[in-house]
Amino acid sequence: MSALPTCQTLLLESHNGVLHITLNRPESRNAMSLQMVDELRAVLATVRDDRAVRALVIGGAGGHFCAGGDIKDMANARAQGPSAYSDLNRAFGALLQAVQHAPQVVITVLQGAVLGGGLGLACVSDVALADHNAQFGLPETSLGLLPAQIAPFVVQRIGLTQARRLALTAARFDGNQARRMGLVHFVEHDAQALAERLDEVLAHVLCCAPGANATTKKLLLASAGQPTDALLDEAAEWFSEAVTGAEGIEGTMAFVQKRKPGWAS
Amino acid sequence: MSALPTCQTLLLESHNGVLHITLNRPESRNAMSLQMVDELRAVLATVRDDRAVRALVIGGAGGHFCAGGDIKDMANARAQGPSAYSDLNRAFGALLQAVQHAPQVVITVLQGAVLGGGLGLACVSDVALADHNAQFGLPETSLGLLPAQIAPFVVQRIGLTQARRLALTAARFDGNQARRMGLVHFVEHDAQALAERLDEVLAHVLCCAPGANATTKKLLLASAGQPTDALLDEAAEWFSEAVTGAEGIEGTMAFVQKRKPGWAS
Amino acid sequence: MSALPTCQTLLLESHNGVLHITLNRPESRNAMSLQMVDELRAVLATVRDDRAVRALVIGGAGGHFCAGGDIKDMANARAQGPSAYSDLNRAFGALLQAVQHAPQVVITVLQGAVLGGGLGLACVSDVALADHNAQFGLPETSLGLLPAQIAPFVVQRIGLTQARRLALTAARFDGNQARRMGLVHFVEHDAQALAERLDEVLAHVLCCAPGANATTKKLLLASAGQPTDALLDEAAEWFSEAVTGAEGIEGTMAFVQKRKPGWAS
Repeated sequence: MSALPTCQTLLLESHNGVLHITLNRPESRNAMSLQMVDELRAVLATVRDDRAVRALVIGGAGGHFCAGGDIKDMANARAQGPSAYSDLNRAFGALLQAVQHAPQVVITVLQGAVLGGGLGLACVSDVALADHNAQFGLPETSLGLLPAQIAPFVVQRIGLTQARRLALTAARFDGNQARRMGLVHFVEHDAQALAERLDEVLAHVLCCAPGANATTKKLLLASAGQPTDALLDEAAEWFSEAVTGAEGIEGTMAFVQKRKPGWAS
Repeated sequence: MSALPTCQTLLLESHNGVLHITLNRPESRNAMSLQMVDELRAVLATVRDDRAVRALVIGGAGGHFCAGGDIKDMANARAQGPSAYSDLNRAFGALLQAVQHAPQVVITVLQGAVLGGGLGLACVSDVALADHNAQFGLPETSLGLLPAQIAPFVVQRIGLTQARRLALTAARFDGNQARRMGLVHFVEHDAQALAERLDEVLAHVLCCAPGANATTKKLLLASAGQPTDALLDEAAEWFSEAVTGAEGIEGTMAFVQKRKPGWAS
Repeated sequence: MSALPTCQTLLLESHNGVLHITLNRPESRNAMSLQMVDELRAVLATVRDDRAVRALVIGGAGGHFCAGGDIKDMANARAQGPSAYSDLNRAFGALLQAVQHAPQVVITVLQGAVLGGGLGLACVSDVALADHNAQFGLPETSLGLLPAQIAPFVVQRIGLTQARRLALTAARFDGNQARRMGLVHFVEHDAQALAERLDEVLAHVLCCAPGANATTKKLLLASAGQPTDALLDEAAEWFSEAVTGAEGIEGTMAFVQKRKPGWAS
């Protein structure tokens, strides 16, 4: 596996094809500092082309996921002038894009504060697990600010109808409501149940071929809007490559031989 | 606050930054006449640039929201020839677009008939509250007609999957079903509970900065489809303007000083 | 009604404006062979312009809907070289497009296996009825393959959030979960209840004017993304044609005369 960058705001632990990333600034409920943004982007870039890393699990230290942007960075930006604000803001959006398009399956484990940018991060995960007591919300407009980089991902995650209510009323909601809105996939009642659910999801992920999953994810993300001739033509080429490639040959052979394929053993 | 136009089909009442608009043709279950369309568009245009008007609450007189288009206008159009039909139809679509893009937070209170154009109006509100007994439906195709201006907003509101069933079977459904489909946000069991929910939602809206809300709404509406680099770049500029503007300065200062910001007091 | 093509993989039965199509390869759980794809496309093309055929009901013989692609076709393609794979794959996508855009109301009745291509077919129906014990899933990536033609329709059906979990974990789910995700509209507990629900849905469909339904469906499918001026302008023209056409005249006359319109009697 690729050598990971040294990080001061993240804990990294990797085994069995899964990289566990823990946001580790518990003193500020893992507020998303510019340094944390940069470190996350560096980690994602390092593993991007490494199919031996099959899943990324993102959680937070100290009982919280992420309470949003970091106040200190805002103060620093103030000192540097207006373009510093948009650069700071855009860097976080670039992180969301990188997570969204990571070839690995991205799983978020959501506890405590999942606010602002933390909620944005949850919205770009492939599978989201939440504690029933987690606190979700988009408080930006109640501070005179905008969920600028976050809003497009929230709309894509839960649809315009729910997104407009949440953003325009700065509403807070818990894990069960997040599931009903379709923001998360599973809600559990304690840390033990969350850990078991995570194991179950990872077991399913590891039954899927890493290359096939990466291409399928790319295809799903390209499928916003009306299915088009062009996309379906391209998908047919990808299918042909998959079925004649190493994974397709191993997968169909294992199926016929009634055994597990190599990537699942 | 701006001087409002005189209206014959609407009751207008404004206090505390909220403009209450009541569709007032109870003799026809508030059927959407061309005059009502014109008056609604005039009211929206008048308050459009007035950030002192922070929310628009749209309801109906006499226990109904709106039973759809007005038969008499159809008869008049028949007398005027085919282009009169498309003009009449398109005028209603222009109203839906104006409500959808109103910078204010738009709240609909849905009781009794919410049919055809009435359902379309519900679909462009930011927060929709319904009585459990409200009657929703798209009866157009059962009359040999089309939900022409309405369908695109229904698809955006509840997705293609539900929209195709509703439109192609002319199905009726109640408030609870409307909530399960994601058409409305809250369902209540009587007028008293509806009024209390409305107060609660308005209190949340009034905690949000009016300018930040207007820009956030514009951003959410622009977010249909895949989040793009161009949109995120523009959003970063809007963020910078918000944080360095009066609202952003007041909001972050109030946060640090642990007091309510000016717009919420 | 149009003369239907002779089919070896399908049972066709038509009465009262409804064409019942049964996938009939029970020995392979109605796996979608290239021949079945071709026959379905031929049937759809035959009835395409026939407004006397108002609904298509697609089900499967032997207690299953469709278990996915056919292994034998894959073996044949292997013999013919790589472009045979993409042609085979793309042909199935063309079938999904044809079902999606059929002017008739398409109803799927889902029992037993609804896997891979079978799930894709369910995703392009206007109304989907499922047995609570039906088994849904996208197993492709667990075989090293891609849900290449299917994924775009799954995203459009249930949204990106659910689609990414299902495809990237090869998850299995039942009828109740399919309804909660919005993949199907109704879940029933046995064949009798499914048959009754089908009768009810068909009765509603037959109350809607066939031409109005066909145009409305076209409009709904064109409504992905943000409602635009261009689409609303075109819709206004379609409205004018509908209201001045035979169906619109009959429908509004029947309404005034408090009788059923011709198409509903």
